[in-house]
Amino acid sequence: MLDGLFRPGSVALIGATDKEGKIGHAIMKNIVESGYRGKIYPVNPGREEVLGYKCYNSLSEINDSVELVVILVPATAVNSVAEEAAQCGAKYLVIISAGFKEVGKEGLEREKELLAICRKAGMRVLGPNCVGLVDTHTPLNASFAKGTPARGPIAFISQSGALLVSILDWSMEMNLGFSKFISLGNKSDLNEADFIAAAADDPDTRVILCYIEDVVDGPYFLETVQQASLKKPIVILKSGASQAGARAASSHTGALAGSDLAYEVAFKQSGVLRARTMEELFDLAESFSKHPLPGGDKVAIITNAGGPGIITTDWVEAQGLTMAGFQKETTQILRHKLPLEAGVYNPVDVLGDARAERFETALSLVLDDEGVDSALVLLCPAATTEPERTAEVIVAAQEKFADKPIFAAYMGGPFLEEGARMLAESGIPCYTFPERTVTALRGMVSYSQFLKQHKQKEPIRFKDIDQNRVKAILYDVLRDQRMVLLGNETAAIAEAYGIPAAPVKLAKDAAQARAIAEELGYPVVLKVASPKIMHKTDVGGVKLGLQDADEVEQGFMEILDRVQKHFPDTALYGVEIQKMMPKGKEVIVGMMDDVQFGPVLAFGMGGVYVNLIEDVSFRLARDLTVPEIKEMITETKAYTLLRGFRGENPSDIDSAVDIIARLACLTLDFPEITEVDLNPVFIYEQGASAVDVKITISWD
Amino acid sequence: MLDGLFRPGSVALIGATDKEGKIGHAIMKNIVESGYRGKIYPVNPGREEVLGYKCYNSLSEINDSVELVVILVPATAVNSVAEEAAQCGAKYLVIISAGFKEVGKEGLEREKELLAICRKAGMRVLGPNCVGLVDTHTPLNASFAKGTPARGPIAFISQSGALLVSILDWSMEMNLGFSKFISLGNKSDLNEADFIAAAADDPDTRVILCYIEDVVDGPYFLETVQQASLKKPIVILKSGASQAGARAASSHTGALAGSDLAYEVAFKQSGVLRARTMEELFDLAESFSKHPLPGGDKVAIITNAGGPGIITTDWVEAQGLTMAGFQKETTQILRHKLPLEAGVYNPVDVLGDARAERFETALSLVLDDEGVDSALVLLCPAATTEPERTAEVIVAAQEKFADKPIFAAYMGGPFLEEGARMLAESGIPCYTFPERTVTALRGMVSYSQFLKQHKQKEPIRFKDIDQNRVKAILYDVLRDQRMVLLGNETAAIAEAYGIPAAPVKLAKDAAQARAIAEELGYPVVLKVASPKIMHKTDVGGVKLGLQDADEVEQGFMEILDRVQKHFPDTALYGVEIQKMMPKGKEVIVGMMDDVQFGPVLAFGMGGVYVNLIEDVSFRLARDLTVPEIKEMITETKAYTLLRGFRGENPSDIDSAVDIIARLACLTLDFPEITEVDLNPVFIYEQGASAVDVKITISWD
Repeated sequence: MLDGLFRPGSVALIGATDKEGKIGHAIMKNIVESGYRGKIYPVNPGREEVLGYKCYNSLSEINDSVELVVILVPATAVNSVAEEAAQCGAKYLVIISAGFKEVGKEGLEREKELLAICRKAGMRVLGPNCVGLVDTHTPLNASFAKGTPARGPIAFISQSGALLVSILDWSMEMNLGFSKFISLGNKSDLNEADFIAAAADDPDTRVILCYIEDVVDGPYFLETVQQASLKKPIVILKSGASQAGARAASSHTGALAGSDLAYEVAFKQSGVLRARTMEELFDLAESFSKHPLPGGDKVAIITNAGGPGIITTDWVEAQGLTMAGFQKETTQILRHKLPLEAGVYNPVDVLGDARAERFETALSLVLDDEGVDSALVLLCPAATTEPERTAEVIVAAQEKFADKPIFAAYMGGPFLEEGARMLAESGIPCYTFPERTVTALRGMVSYSQFLKQHKQKEPIRFKDIDQNRVKAILYDVLRDQRMVLLGNETAAIAEAYGIPAAPVKLAKDAAQARAIAEELGYPVVLKVASPKIMHKTDVGGVKLGLQDADEVEQGFMEILDRVQKHFPDTALYGVEIQKMMPKGKEVIVGMMDDVQFGPVLAFGMGGVYVNLIEDVSFRLARDLTVPEIKEMITETKAYTLLRGFRGENPSDIDSAVDIIARLACLTLDFPEITEVDLNPVFIYEQGASAVDVKITISWD
Repeated sequence: MLDGLFRPGSVALIGATDKEGKIGHAIMKNIVESGYRGKIYPVNPGREEVLGYKCYNSLSEINDSVELVVILVPATAVNSVAEEAAQCGAKYLVIISAGFKEVGKEGLEREKELLAICRKAGMRVLGPNCVGLVDTHTPLNASFAKGTPARGPIAFISQSGALLVSILDWSMEMNLGFSKFISLGNKSDLNEADFIAAAADDPDTRVILCYIEDVVDGPYFLETVQQASLKKPIVILKSGASQAGARAASSHTGALAGSDLAYEVAFKQSGVLRARTMEELFDLAESFSKHPLPGGDKVAIITNAGGPGIITTDWVEAQGLTMAGFQKETTQILRHKLPLEAGVYNPVDVLGDARAERFETALSLVLDDEGVDSALVLLCPAATTEPERTAEVIVAAQEKFADKPIFAAYMGGPFLEEGARMLAESGIPCYTFPERTVTALRGMVSYSQFLKQHKQKEPIRFKDIDQNRVKAILYDVLRDQRMVLLGNETAAIAEAYGIPAAPVKLAKDAAQARAIAEELGYPVVLKVASPKIMHKTDVGGVKLGLQDADEVEQGFMEILDRVQKHFPDTALYGVEIQKMMPKGKEVIVGMMDDVQFGPVLAFGMGGVYVNLIEDVSFRLARDLTVPEIKEMITETKAYTLLRGFRGENPSDIDSAVDIIARLACLTLDFPEITEVDLNPVFIYEQGASAVDVKITISWD
């Protein structure tokens, strides 16, 4: 994918110059010095030659097809160059020039026009307002960043050009190699999802890193990234997570980013690892690019010092990994082969006087244990410590146990330096302090678990759904120009989608109220039906626990009386009669619509203090599966409650799963539904019942 | 404090040798090469000279007073050397030798004997089983670690010798200077608290770092560290936080460490910053040792790139710091002086083409704003970037605004290296990625806030407490050899300490039950009184909501009947009659005893699902103050509830504060109380009432 962009047969640079300090010089130099083997056409009217290459007055003068055109002329001249490129049969444009969407209305118009030109000609665009791109394997550096990164397996896609330049400069001193550097710029055409997809199919890339402030197209992002993350690990640092950060991001990009919560959930469901810090982003990059993927979360620690072993054990548990429990045999042989004072449980303490052999013994034994998925070697400097030979031992063990990653922390300075360097060069990332290693391992385990869980992704489908009934109801609501549905309408929608809800019917007069109550059975609740009246209880619009037809009739009259006193001019639809349901465990199920990712479902504990307890777990409705819903439920305290707390009988968790699945279908089928609130839902030992169903619609 | 240990006039080294590779050589070499200016006496029978110093056959042969004796002979010979040192008038022993408490029973006996010898002679001991100590300002390196750390203001105290050696080696390549290195070893005599106190009074130390696995003496630690942290920041990495880590720590040190929760609270209340990782420990060390303390939590960011500005803004908020809001004037001048496209709110974006002057302008303006407590400068490499000149600008600004710390992140590699080095050398810590800087700043702000809050620490005292009444009750409990108190006893204890609780009296017969109920008023609750019966409701031992004397009499008989059927052989104390209290907001107040730190108080939301909601905040009873109790309450969701949630009236929070304060007094006055459970406590709009008071005693 995007082959002509990353491996073009020819590149034209519009605005090339040999004036040092100019961007047109920097890019030309990069193209040439990166060792690009295709044809290079500098374009700049009035120049004969740039850096030894014949220079052209215009694209059309080249008289050859040009696959990739890099443009850095002033913004006002870009679109006519694009027209010319189209005429010359160019396939890809990289537009470095600024002065588009990011500068306001005029720029936005210019960008739209640019896009129209390119769409018409079938040209794809990176930028505008970007630093360019690098492919180290082609090789091609079509950017104005200083220097070309070392070749390697990391693709780095950045919405911030400055960050890309920073990382390039930083990586010069690191032991990190990159396959691609892509500066997204304004993302007028090609965006993060396109490049993630391309990198996922790129044989030179093992891990995909992104820095983004927003995504351009939520559904496309989800669809693309879900596929891509099954092929390669994707690690994203998305900024704007905090309120202040979101404000700063929106003033920076002018984009409507969607809620950070929706991003969090979108990443989780599509297997993206979200890095919290820059350090974590690159530690994960290094780990994924060098290590085998661990089969599970069980870590063995081998150390020559007690204290660091305990510190690391703490961090292993803090990161949600598991300290491996060794098989009896492993412990016995360790006890036999190590000195008497050695620790033979996990962490294995080979003692301060350990030479490389003792590390070798311990490492082989624990890696051979099937209860161990990865190993972490801690080395502190002591008189007999052999940092280089221990490094050799670690490298050999990694070769022998190729499916269990080994991490190392060489805790010291000059004394351990050479050993640490040997490890790094042999592909075993080695830090001074062990915690970073553990955090990186945590990311690898998460990805490994994602791959296992997502092998068989079965979409949710129901056959007993009556879409037409919902359409009919929404038709009436639309005709009324209402945003909020009446109780009888929401109950009917729930029923149409198989969501168990307390039956509600609308009574226009007292006689009808009697008849409905008789039909539903007692006790019943009466509520005034009017989308305009928000606080129904306060105006006497609600009656609870009515036990017979007479009470219902009387209640009906009282409600109408009182409400008409408060709201003489408000049209009433009548009174809703709802069957009172027996109490169960209270949970809430809800949905809110995200501007980028569509319906976000919520599940958690219900009850009076639901907002206080804040026990809510979220998932996107899009592509949701039953195992994901189950996982969503287990993340909450409500789950503990439903399983049976303090000796109570377990509740029907499957019925909660079913409700969430059906709500997902409803909200995907009807995007005009912007908010749903099932609060509370009573979960019984058998079955469940949504007692209050609120649905809000938007007609935009 | 401990002057003779850190700055002795003379040092004897028992076991000195010039055989390379031996510890006795390493220490001798360190003493000599560290530049120690006092007298040096190597002791080793049969040698004439060690490293050019006259060697003695024994201490007594020296014929001069020796202030500090460093011992590294085999464990079995240590105690006789200690005897000899005592006779020679030595003041301090540093015992390097292993083979004491850490090797089991025999070693423990040896260590006890050693301690007895030293106590008798008034000698203080560091170790045994330690690496030794370094004071770079004396200078004296009496350790076998390789090399001497650079001189500086950081005192590092470590319970792990290996970690100390690691950090020493590591620090060789870092820009970090140390005042003292102390390896605690077995802590037979001098422990972490002694050295924290000494470092707090040491004019050469600005910040105190510790790695510990436990503390030796909780109350002494608290008392000492509370004083010390008012003088200097103390940062502790305490391992054993996780369950697996605690197991590893206990098998490593053999110590009963107390719960990690108690440590967490102890650190918090004594102003100790707890580092979560090694990196954080040393980042905080660097920040405290170089920076002025910020006056508050309001951070200004100045950046030449948008993306990194947003990333950093996110992290500022994630760490609980505040993005400063500038005064109108600041923004106006920024707008006037910076280019049109610059961001003039926080983060201030001086744009990619900014030279040093633009950073200078922005930095001066925001630091001059009284709404700003600290500044963070982010620099990304671009063509016009001036990393060195910008460094000069930052250093000058720090000199001008000496009370507002400036942090820097130079986000790049070779291009920014020289500027970053200049900053580091001028005392402005500079990292590649900004997040570490923000985390360190967070620690500094916490310490600054601690200092402000703890200026006036008023102990809690009550005059209306009746200790004797509690003693009388406990006397009866002791006579019965009971661990669990009866309801009437706990109610009486609560009353004696002024804790409002539902009145409970014990009725031995039906007539008494009637009389008590009449006296208390209705409704009442009846409960069988027997410390042996745990699940009283299950055996029919409880009757709720009795409304008159007849119901009480009947209830009394029924309870006795049923309980005697279930437990024919169990002695009953009678039936407790408790007045039923009106419902209020439910909270719990509790206490559990920690082996190291004594009573730990708990406060949180009550109700049926209290264990599920896990809304609990903790404080040590020792030295607790009313503002700390208020802070404790505000940390919980119960606080939101009590303030008035969903339009409810606020509850009497002061009465909750009062209950916690009184419970603190009770549990400090009676350390034999090991557990208290007030669950629930009803908090009313006025006043409160503990409905169920459970107290457990230990007679060890």
